[in-house]
Amino acid sequence: MSGEMKVKHLRVMKRANYLYSLLIATSFLSLPLPTQNRVMAQQAMTSDHLDLMPVPASLQIQTGRLPFTRSFNVAIKNYTDDRLRAGIARMLTRIAGRTVLTLSPELATDESAAILVVQCERAGEIIPSLGENESYSLEINDKQARLVAPTVVGALRGLETFLQLLQGDRDGYYLPAIKIQDQPRFPWRGLLIDVARHYEPIEVLKRNLDAMAAVKLNVFHWHLTEDQGFRVESKKFPRLHTLGSDGLFYTQDQVREIIAYARDRGIRVMPEFDIPGHSTSWLVAYPEFGSAPGPYKIERGAGIFEPALDPTREQTYKFLDTFLGEMAGLFPDAYMHIGGDENEGKQWDRNPQIQAFMKEKGIKDNHALQAYFNQRILKILQKHHKKMIGWDEILHPDLPQDAVIQSWRGPASLAEAAKKGYNGILSAGYYIDLVLPASQHYVADPIPADASLTPEEAKRILGGEATMWGEWVSPETIDSRIWPRTAAIAERLWSPRNVTDIEDMYRRLSVISRQLEELGLTHEKNYGMLLRRLTASENTGPLRTLASIVEPVKQYRRYQMRPQTMLSPLTGLVDAARPDSETARQFNSNVDAFLADAPRFTLFRSDLEHTLDEWQAASRRLGPMIDQSPALQEARPLANNLSAIAEAGLEALSYLSSGSAPAAEWSQKQLARLDEAAKPKAALEFVVITSVRRLVIAASELPQLRSMTPAEWNKRVTTMASPPAPAKP
Amino acid sequence: MSGEMKVKHLRVMKRANYLYSLLIATSFLSLPLPTQNRVMAQQAMTSDHLDLMPVPASLQIQTGRLPFTRSFNVAIKNYTDDRLRAGIARMLTRIAGRTVLTLSPELATDESAAILVVQCERAGEIIPSLGENESYSLEINDKQARLVAPTVVGALRGLETFLQLLQGDRDGYYLPAIKIQDQPRFPWRGLLIDVARHYEPIEVLKRNLDAMAAVKLNVFHWHLTEDQGFRVESKKFPRLHTLGSDGLFYTQDQVREIIAYARDRGIRVMPEFDIPGHSTSWLVAYPEFGSAPGPYKIERGAGIFEPALDPTREQTYKFLDTFLGEMAGLFPDAYMHIGGDENEGKQWDRNPQIQAFMKEKGIKDNHALQAYFNQRILKILQKHHKKMIGWDEILHPDLPQDAVIQSWRGPASLAEAAKKGYNGILSAGYYIDLVLPASQHYVADPIPADASLTPEEAKRILGGEATMWGEWVSPETIDSRIWPRTAAIAERLWSPRNVTDIEDMYRRLSVISRQLEELGLTHEKNYGMLLRRLTASENTGPLRTLASIVEPVKQYRRYQMRPQTMLSPLTGLVDAARPDSETARQFNSNVDAFLADAPRFTLFRSDLEHTLDEWQAASRRLGPMIDQSPALQEARPLANNLSAIAEAGLEALSYLSSGSAPAAEWSQKQLARLDEAAKPKAALEFVVITSVRRLVIAASELPQLRSMTPAEWNKRVTTMASPPAPAKP
Repeated sequence: MSGEMKVKHLRVMKRANYLYSLLIATSFLSLPLPTQNRVMAQQAMTSDHLDLMPVPASLQIQTGRLPFTRSFNVAIKNYTDDRLRAGIARMLTRIAGRTVLTLSPELATDESAAILVVQCERAGEIIPSLGENESYSLEINDKQARLVAPTVVGALRGLETFLQLLQGDRDGYYLPAIKIQDQPRFPWRGLLIDVARHYEPIEVLKRNLDAMAAVKLNVFHWHLTEDQGFRVESKKFPRLHTLGSDGLFYTQDQVREIIAYARDRGIRVMPEFDIPGHSTSWLVAYPEFGSAPGPYKIERGAGIFEPALDPTREQTYKFLDTFLGEMAGLFPDAYMHIGGDENEGKQWDRNPQIQAFMKEKGIKDNHALQAYFNQRILKILQKHHKKMIGWDEILHPDLPQDAVIQSWRGPASLAEAAKKGYNGILSAGYYIDLVLPASQHYVADPIPADASLTPEEAKRILGGEATMWGEWVSPETIDSRIWPRTAAIAERLWSPRNVTDIEDMYRRLSVISRQLEELGLTHEKNYGMLLRRLTASENTGPLRTLASIVEPVKQYRRYQMRPQTMLSPLTGLVDAARPDSETARQFNSNVDAFLADAPRFTLFRSDLEHTLDEWQAASRRLGPMIDQSPALQEARPLANNLSAIAEAGLEALSYLSSGSAPAAEWSQKQLARLDEAAKPKAALEFVVITSVRRLVIAASELPQLRSMTPAEWNKRVTTMASPPAPAKP
Repeated sequence: MSGEMKVKHLRVMKRANYLYSLLIATSFLSLPLPTQNRVMAQQAMTSDHLDLMPVPASLQIQTGRLPFTRSFNVAIKNYTDDRLRAGIARMLTRIAGRTVLTLSPELATDESAAILVVQCERAGEIIPSLGENESYSLEINDKQARLVAPTVVGALRGLETFLQLLQGDRDGYYLPAIKIQDQPRFPWRGLLIDVARHYEPIEVLKRNLDAMAAVKLNVFHWHLTEDQGFRVESKKFPRLHTLGSDGLFYTQDQVREIIAYARDRGIRVMPEFDIPGHSTSWLVAYPEFGSAPGPYKIERGAGIFEPALDPTREQTYKFLDTFLGEMAGLFPDAYMHIGGDENEGKQWDRNPQIQAFMKEKGIKDNHALQAYFNQRILKILQKHHKKMIGWDEILHPDLPQDAVIQSWRGPASLAEAAKKGYNGILSAGYYIDLVLPASQHYVADPIPADASLTPEEAKRILGGEATMWGEWVSPETIDSRIWPRTAAIAERLWSPRNVTDIEDMYRRLSVISRQLEELGLTHEKNYGMLLRRLTASENTGPLRTLASIVEPVKQYRRYQMRPQTMLSPLTGLVDAARPDSETARQFNSNVDAFLADAPRFTLFRSDLEHTLDEWQAASRRLGPMIDQSPALQEARPLANNLSAIAEAGLEALSYLSSGSAPAAEWSQKQLARLDEAAKPKAALEFVVITSVRRLVIAASELPQLRSMTPAEWNKRVTTMASPPAPAKP
């Protein structure tokens, strides 16, 4: 499944509506809380401001604290190995970096003298595997912390929790006394990274594996081939990577390096070789396996393309048998992903030999032909001891029940598959390339509250995967498209289903986001870097102000509004701007509080004035900045809009503060200007306009307000300006 | 030669004094300008604000400009190869990133249709070599740019100049019409990176090689072994890297990868294996080659240590023959660096066998014994077809004349060697680990104006090397310790000797510094990241204000004031703070202008007030910030000092603005508080105190001012507060 433009729009629109209804539902519902422990977990997370993410299955705050000093040390009890010791060493390095304390790298030999005792029972699986026990318990009192886990992977998960519990105040660093018993809700918690549209060097993958481990994700889904690139070295067919990659591919040594790195962190590495469609780059080297004559060139555009392997030729299967056999030897995971999505079969329709083959075999349509292909691939995978996984499209009556369906269609489609006996994972709702806010991903549940599955069926929903499709990400920007939002998805897949407080999620997300920087993630620091490059200056102030309240257009509208190729630089303002504006969230929340404070309108008034003044000042200073920097020309209309937004907001504030209503024309004019400002430019849109619109409407309704009760006003406030209409395709 | 603490202090003090006198000299001297072209280069650089660094040997600005649009393309004329094509591809990627223009990666086939024609005559040396022709000429008119170079390396140098010429304004991007004829003043322009005290992953080395190429440096001096670590894989003696490195070493494949990466950029890679001292990590694996029985452990401290190879045992030479032979096969450069520094011979003094050997051979002291050792090593290197290079200490009458002396002692020592017929390179003055400002490095010249060398002797001064000793740098901080200051050293080694305008150097350095970010350098972006980690918050404002006007203590005082080991985290405020505060430079310059504007005192007054207000506000907000973050406890005295500095400055401003003189006690009190604030804390020192002191003195001298002429006042202003005394050891 890919980040394509045309067909996917409809899908996305459906999903967006679905998500929106979920969002509304969860905001107003108090879900039944299944166990007392979970209630406590919820309470503890909100009342004591623990910054754990994902929230553990159960926790109890105790009284007391364990001081953390330079004499901190760790003892290992029972089982130990290199992987566990390396995990502890990494934790020590991170804590030292955070606390600026010199810690001894030596393990304590005496358990009673250790501050943290890690009691591990056994190695667990040699290669991280689906369903491996990842549970652990962590008890901290004012003398000692004890982490108990049946497997090394469980212990690694517990070490991440330990790290997240570290806090500081005037007296120094400490961990709160606490009892945690934790295990994941779902066994399959993945992140897909598409390295085919844009290549990502292995250091990018490594730091993202570190981040995955930090939030307890356990599957790296490595999307290795696409129309736009073939990224893995094949020793059997070296033309594949040499001709299909612009020289940007992973050597088999690098693949092994990534697998070892992931294994060290308890993360599976599942490769995807997307066939029979999405295969242009394969056909650059081997046009003879294509369904049209060729020659083929590496695709530079974004979208769905026609090239597809020829499913009617025995040579194709012989080639795939050898190639997939080679890859089966390289990748130890039990699963191999064959894609299978978005093949429209146009090449098949036009190829007389393929048509003849279908007729001969009684294959009635392209879907059936692809099912035939999948059956053949399935046998190849079985021969090489791999289980098959593919996108929704592979679901077919002939599919064996140990296959896994990865669903971009949604939980309903997944539930249906589960009822037919198939295992599945959810990716609809977790398409992080759609640039949606974390809150929207957070409410997508692989097993929604209204799913009517038997416990056995529910067990077939294995989890989910965030998908980082690679059309519009470079090594410089990919971290900011994955993090911190993916941490919210990780929580959805690990934590109890009733952990749904969005405000608290954002509070913790902000803490976790900074902690991810310790691992070398660049989602935060490359923001300023890109702004400096755009302004060719150290003083990015006004541009930073603008960038802080715009977001890239959602879903797949970027390509329509600002077409680029895979060879285009990803260094524009749209690449610097972030998907989930914290500044806007704060502003919008302040406007809510301000408007509810009728008729006085004093709450947050000076904050709002200050913010709007800053926007106005920035809009004035942006003009000369853009003059100096041609790369910013496309931001000029945004700078003008910013001025209009600030002016509307400031004038509305002034009316509301003074209690004097504006003339009718005033609000019409302001609303018209806001409508204009709401139109995306440079593939960016302001995410504060609804709030400013509400200020304008409130000012214009001041006369009516005088006759309302507080309750009536509050009711009016909540309906004052509807949220922005869902984006049009 | 290393960043050691004890002995080196004396050396450093000598050098510091020397530099200071040079600084004074060059500020007031107008050096004779050798050619008209050079005059023009100087004028062009200052008047037209070209941002070239290093300044070319000669340039002439023409009228007109060459527009730079998305139709930009490059044609290659005459010779071409992979290296040249890759260099052009890298340039296209960087320009695209800067301009946000989608550029075609295809070369133009028709020279007349190309915007840039690269005319290269031949490959040049297969492996970048000392003395290779690096010259190029670049002519740009309003239609086309033409880069002509005899070698690929020359063309690569010219491409960097082309990139630096790119400018933008309201009409878009362009390059000024210009004629440049360029070649380096010195053939050896290096950067030493010590990866032994702290290991640096290869991506750190790669981005630094990119930065070196950007400023036309051509030698990467890879300091691979030390007491604290043995960082290169030896297949002959694998115990060396397995036992001596904590697992942090470069595989031979990685070494080859770095050499190829450097070669692609026209950079030599010269390894250093520091012997017979600085060798503890070798002896961890092979105590039998040590001069004391052992066992040895990897050294974790900083300083000079006793372990030294035993120069009296034939086994030692047999071992070194095999090892250096292996390394000679791995590293293609003609030179191999054997260190040879800072062996105090204490182990030799205590070893009766060694003493007996010396007596038997008539070796009169340890210096002579080391000379004997060097003679033996020289023969080994000659056998393996390598020329020897080492630190000052290796200079000895028996040394052959094709050896090279790397001098930490200074240009006088180098000149002396040159007179004896030896080649040499300067590193004294370029010790970037001393955390001195770029201006101090900039004035250090390998051939000072007062050097009395014949042209032939002068030719023996091959150039110089910046030295990044690794005691206090991590992968997170090393870029900020190397860049941007090393660009000023690169200019000293490339540009004509009369390019000495420090203000203009800083102006260009700031531009180049941002451009280095395009290459992935983290010197700028990790500043904010470290501050976020220290505050455990997104809102680092007050800490950033403090950090912007303090610098790490200079020379080797950090270790004395704040002892750490090689296992300590390098994440404190001293690691975040930068060596060469731009904020302080601006403030100090504003104070100069303000004081010269007597008796009105209006120039920059509001800027100064604004800045001092900001310091005061920051000092107030720092307290609660430090309360929350134990890692910042050590900054508390600095926060208090900041308040005192701001108050003194604001009150002085107020007196000067109103013209009313303060009471005598006032200035005594303020000066006393400033004296207190001037004392380093947390290994940091304020670099604005001299200016604030001048404001206080000026205020206290208001009565005298009334009777002074402007000329008298100006004279008084320049002597008002002497610069801070050189740091005491």
